[in-house]
Amino acid sequence: MQRYFINPDQVSDGQIEIYGDDIHHVKNVMRLSAGDCIICCDGEGIDYRVRIQQVEDHRILCRIEERFLSEGEPKLRITVAQSLPKREKMEWVIQKGTELGADRFQPFTSARTVVKLDGKKASKRRERWRRIAKEAAEQAHRGRIPVVEPLLDWNGLLQSFTAYDRVFFAYEKGGHPLKEVAKFPSDASLLLVIGPEGGFPESEAEEAKAAGAVSIHLGPRILRAETAPLALLACLLYSNGEMGGEPL
Amino acid sequence: MQRYFINPDQVSDGQIEIYGDDIHHVKNVMRLSAGDCIICCDGEGIDYRVRIQQVEDHRILCRIEERFLSEGEPKLRITVAQSLPKREKMEWVIQKGTELGADRFQPFTSARTVVKLDGKKASKRRERWRRIAKEAAEQAHRGRIPVVEPLLDWNGLLQSFTAYDRVFFAYEKGGHPLKEVAKFPSDASLLLVIGPEGGFPESEAEEAKAAGAVSIHLGPRILRAETAPLALLACLLYSNGEMGGEPL
Repeated sequence: MQRYFINPDQVSDGQIEIYGDDIHHVKNVMRLSAGDCIICCDGEGIDYRVRIQQVEDHRILCRIEERFLSEGEPKLRITVAQSLPKREKMEWVIQKGTELGADRFQPFTSARTVVKLDGKKASKRRERWRRIAKEAAEQAHRGRIPVVEPLLDWNGLLQSFTAYDRVFFAYEKGGHPLKEVAKFPSDASLLLVIGPEGGFPESEAEEAKAAGAVSIHLGPRILRAETAPLALLACLLYSNGEMGGEPL
Repeated sequence: MQRYFINPDQVSDGQIEIYGDDIHHVKNVMRLSAGDCIICCDGEGIDYRVRIQQVEDHRILCRIEERFLSEGEPKLRITVAQSLPKREKMEWVIQKGTELGADRFQPFTSARTVVKLDGKKASKRRERWRRIAKEAAEQAHRGRIPVVEPLLDWNGLLQSFTAYDRVFFAYEKGGHPLKEVAKFPSDASLLLVIGPEGGFPESEAEEAKAAGAVSIHLGPRILRAETAPLALLACLLYSNGEMGGEPL
C-alpha cells in the first residue's frame, strides 16, 4: 500500500488532509480515487491507514480507519557523517542509509575532500538529498524521514562530537576492530565519521581522537568511502537486534 | 602499495613474471620501474611482495622479497545469487559485494525478472562483471577474485541448492528474522538468494522452500534488491568475526 509522509498538523478530527506535491502522485501516478486506501506517516512514529473520501485540485480528504505505532524506526540512533564524495555517491549513501535505518546524515568537508560546494549550490544539493531521503523512507517503510543537515567544515564536525554517546571514526590505518568497541546502550546515539576517497590525513585522525572519537575498522578488507557507512549501519543495527533480530 | 592478481604459473624460482594488460598499468598508469615494489596476489591465498628488476615491452620481471598468506579472505564462503536487476545495479552489487567479502556471484532469472540477456549479450556482460570483480578485489585487498558464474534460470538455481550448507532466501512476506537462523559452522558455504525488484512471486518462494531454502528477512525496514545482498554480507561476516572482529 502506498505510503506518504505528512505533517502532524494535517491530522484532525478523524481526518487527514493531503496537499502539495503528493496530490499529483496520488491522482496521476498511483491513479487512486475515493474509496481507495493509503498509509500516511506523521514522521513522529504514528502511521494511519486512511480511506480517500474526496479528491480535489488542491487537497485530498481522507478518513482515518486505523492508527498504529510505526515499526520502522530503530532505537539505536545513528548519524552518518560523510566527507563529501563525488555526487552520485552521496545520493547512494543517503538512499541506502535511509533504507538501512540511519537517523541522520551530516555531510562535511575534510582537508582532502575533492568536491567543493558554495552556498547556493550547497542549498540546492541539500534539497535534492532531502527528497532522496523522503522517497527512500517511504519505500523502506520508515516511521520518519532522516534529516539531512547542512554541510559542516572539519572544525564544525569536531565540535559536534560531544552531542553523541559514542563517536566511531572509520580509519584503515589503525584503530580497533569494530566488534571490540561496539558496546553501548541499545538506545544510544552514535556518530559514524567516514572519510574522503583518499582516506583521512593523519593529522585529522589525531584531532578526531583528541575530540573523543574511537578509531575503528571493518577489516581485513578495505571498503570504499560509500560502502563503509552502509556496512557499519548494517553491522551495528544487526548486533542491536534491529535488523532481522529480536525487537527490543 | 599497488596490487596485481597473477596466475600461480607466473611464479618460479624466486621470480614473478608479469605480462598482459598489467604491463601498461605498471609502466604508464603507476609509472613504476626497476627498484620499485608491488604486491602480486596468486588468487589462491598467497601474496608476494616483489621488487621490479626488468621492465620490457611484453613482460616485467620481479624478484620475490617476501611471501605471506593473504589475510583478505573470509572462512565463511558466501555466494550471492541475484535476480538480474537493471544494469548498473548488478555492477554495484558485484563491486561492493567483492569489497565486503563475497565468495561468488550467481546471476539468475526469475519469473518476474525484467531484464533479458541473450547468449552473446550475456557473455559480454559476464566479462564486464568479471573485470569489475577483479578491480574491486585488488582495491579491497582480497586474496582472490570472486567468480562470476554464467546466468542460470530459476530451475537451474533451485537445482544448485544442494551444493551449499545453507540456503537463505530473502523474502519480506514471511520468514525468519536473520538472527534466528544464522547458525552455522564458521567455514560454512552459504547461498543468499535475492529476488527481483518487484519481489518473488509466492510460487517461487514455495519452490525455494521445497528445495531446502530458509526464508529470511532483515526487517522491519524494506531493503531494495541491490541493498539486501550487501546488508546480508555485512551482517553474516560481522557475526562470524570476519569484519572488524576477532580473526577465527
